[in-house]
Amino acid sequence: MIKNMTEDEITLQALKAIIENRKKDFEAIVDELQPYDVAKLYESFPIKHKTRFLLFLNAHLLADLLEELDTDQQLEVLNKLGVEKTGKVLDLMDNDDLASLLEELSPERITSLLSGMKKEESKIVQDIMNYPPETAGRLMTNRFVWIRNYYTVRDAVGKLRSFADFAETINYLYVIDEKRRLVGVVSYRDLLIADADEIIKNIMFERVIAVSDMMDQEEVARMIERYDFMAIPVVNEDNVLMGIVTVDDIIDVFIQEANEDIEKLSAAGKSIDFDTRAFTAAYRRLPWLILLLFIGLVSGKIISSYSETLEKVVALAFFMPMIAGMTGNTGTQSLAVVVRGLISTDIDKKVIFRLVSRELGVGLIIGLTCALLISVIAFIWQGDLILGIVVGSSLFLTLIIGTLAGTVIPLVLYHFNIDPAVASGPLITTLNDIFSLITYFGIATLFLNQLK
Amino acid sequence: MIKNMTEDEITLQALKAIIENRKKDFEAIVDELQPYDVAKLYESFPIKHKTRFLLFLNAHLLADLLEELDTDQQLEVLNKLGVEKTGKVLDLMDNDDLASLLEELSPERITSLLSGMKKEESKIVQDIMNYPPETAGRLMTNRFVWIRNYYTVRDAVGKLRSFADFAETINYLYVIDEKRRLVGVVSYRDLLIADADEIIKNIMFERVIAVSDMMDQEEVARMIERYDFMAIPVVNEDNVLMGIVTVDDIIDVFIQEANEDIEKLSAAGKSIDFDTRAFTAAYRRLPWLILLLFIGLVSGKIISSYSETLEKVVALAFFMPMIAGMTGNTGTQSLAVVVRGLISTDIDKKVIFRLVSRELGVGLIIGLTCALLISVIAFIWQGDLILGIVVGSSLFLTLIIGTLAGTVIPLVLYHFNIDPAVASGPLITTLNDIFSLITYFGIATLFLNQLK
Repeated sequence: MIKNMTEDEITLQALKAIIENRKKDFEAIVDELQPYDVAKLYESFPIKHKTRFLLFLNAHLLADLLEELDTDQQLEVLNKLGVEKTGKVLDLMDNDDLASLLEELSPERITSLLSGMKKEESKIVQDIMNYPPETAGRLMTNRFVWIRNYYTVRDAVGKLRSFADFAETINYLYVIDEKRRLVGVVSYRDLLIADADEIIKNIMFERVIAVSDMMDQEEVARMIERYDFMAIPVVNEDNVLMGIVTVDDIIDVFIQEANEDIEKLSAAGKSIDFDTRAFTAAYRRLPWLILLLFIGLVSGKIISSYSETLEKVVALAFFMPMIAGMTGNTGTQSLAVVVRGLISTDIDKKVIFRLVSRELGVGLIIGLTCALLISVIAFIWQGDLILGIVVGSSLFLTLIIGTLAGTVIPLVLYHFNIDPAVASGPLITTLNDIFSLITYFGIATLFLNQLK
Repeated sequence: MIKNMTEDEITLQALKAIIENRKKDFEAIVDELQPYDVAKLYESFPIKHKTRFLLFLNAHLLADLLEELDTDQQLEVLNKLGVEKTGKVLDLMDNDDLASLLEELSPERITSLLSGMKKEESKIVQDIMNYPPETAGRLMTNRFVWIRNYYTVRDAVGKLRSFADFAETINYLYVIDEKRRLVGVVSYRDLLIADADEIIKNIMFERVIAVSDMMDQEEVARMIERYDFMAIPVVNEDNVLMGIVTVDDIIDVFIQEANEDIEKLSAAGKSIDFDTRAFTAAYRRLPWLILLLFIGLVSGKIISSYSETLEKVVALAFFMPMIAGMTGNTGTQSLAVVVRGLISTDIDKKVIFRLVSRELGVGLIIGLTCALLISVIAFIWQGDLILGIVVGSSLFLTLIIGTLAGTVIPLVLYHFNIDPAVASGPLITTLNDIFSLITYFGIATLFLNQLK
């Protein structure tokens, strides 16, 4: 019915159906929409009609809707639903989505919500929440279909039929033995093309690639990306099948990890988005800024120790911001290359040696180019050849130092299992500031008598 | 056979099979491995045994292997294969992977490779390569199964059986009408649970979500992420089904886009990884650095215009790097928040107003905190209350300016359809450097007679 309608037309039809209390028509519309679109529709509704919107949805659709909403709106929906219906809806939600909803709530609220659910469902959610954050166990869902290795294809299809509701997005069946250990995998396609009386054991693929429940989510993401899987099974230390992680959650992991890298590299503060309040955002950014303030004071102290030189040749101050800025920037360039490279490359001595010598080469080339350029400019501008040489040779040295610091420091941190993205920024800025000022004023002091 | 072996044991077994010319055993090993693992195995092999490794693989496995290798290694394999076998293997490769392999080659080489392929396959690849880079058309593959709406479920399963080879990873069948227009979609699960005599038209889902072949890959990625799809169909302007984009390619898009954002934000230069040569990396980084060098000279020019002030109070130089650094850093913090936020948020006037006032609030809070801190420190260090006031009030103003510049500039660029990540970095650095120095020396000159 709504096949060729625009979004606005659909919203209008749905709103009319709600206002005129036509439940059937409303259901017909929602039935053809994707969960994401139902959520958008709900969000666009005027507040006074939202309650009936929810009343017109069955528990399955409510569960789908909840999975797509923000935490604030999830809580709004739960408040409107009432205790009894809430329990039913939570039972139907994907465990991983439910776990991340509950995460945001107070312990009392969690207990009250879980108490409304079926025992076995609430137990599963609690088990997931017991895993450390950012592990495979925390990401996994139990919304998948397992079968036994002695089943026939007919048995398997039968089981699939009865669990059809939540077996939509994954196209594998996982095969377990009597101890619930993962022993094989069969794709829906395999089932479709196999004979109905065939035994699963004979058609299943045995070398199943699985991840441990304690594996870091970044590593799980890398496994799925490498193998182009739609889902990967999660097992405990006894190879017992605990759940599966699906590719849609992995996309969220990739986005989250990239955002974290950017936050760390730009020292932008953790988890600040458009909705964060000013006070919270300032609070999260201040530690970095105060650290940088003290780093700036160290630079000031170095400059002050050369104040005699500076007093004699004030022109030295003109080039100070340029040298410090350039050194900082080369350091950041190298840092970004190393941090992103570490994600996809396995590191060994050969790789490190090649990378460091490459960056040394880069430092030499850009150092030489920029140094020649600035020497000529400084000479023309200030009419002082020696000043040109001082500025040029300083820039040459500091660019090499900056490049190497930006390469070596993250590698050393990585070696000691410290996240190179978070720790390198301030460290590299400090060291590069200090090195560049000492080099610059050191060289200038050497030539002090020759400078005009 | 190799089910419980470690990677090293598998490599050893495979190597032994190759050396002892036992093709059957080698095939049995490779048969249980994922394509990614076969590629790793190939890479780990000594060069002198690689040719036989390839000889022992059939065309299907060779196509899988090629899809997993780097360009350099792909070319190595093609050279070893010879013209005739190459044609067969290329026919079997995913078109999108083949297109990105060909992209790297010279026009003559492309023509010669395409001429060895089946006409219809080479036509499809050429069509894909005719799409602009980073569009849905360029990402799509034709390795999917389409059916007609008048088919029965039995027909559909029959067709699926005959195309079983490449219908592994996607669990939908796309339904087209007599003009090849996309009219519906059926999941494998729907087929499994439906009656064999049911007509596809009656069980298919009609409100298919598809993307246009000219859509930007970032938008395609966002669609798949929103709807948690495993694949999305691609249609042309007449709604004719052209191909599908699968979620595994979308993961690569997300990684690529995140890397590009990081490259731009840190001005690290395009596509530099661990394997880029020093000269190339330096060449890609230099434009930014030379731009920054001239920006640095503008700062120098500003300082030189205040050289009288500076000569009288050399201590002013001590705080210069700190003020410039802090202003630059707040700008970058705001920029990172805005650039990442633009990816996931729809922008309207309300959002912009809220964001800008939030950042103004942030600027006030961090400005006030840092200004008080530095006033006290400057007073204690230099024993000059007026200097403390000059440095503190300058920092207060420049932090507010830096925060606002980092917020407003990317939003303005975004409004004019310029990528905020690439253009903002140097712009924000320049403006913040200039503003901060003018503010600092301007205030200092006002108080010049009171300063010690």
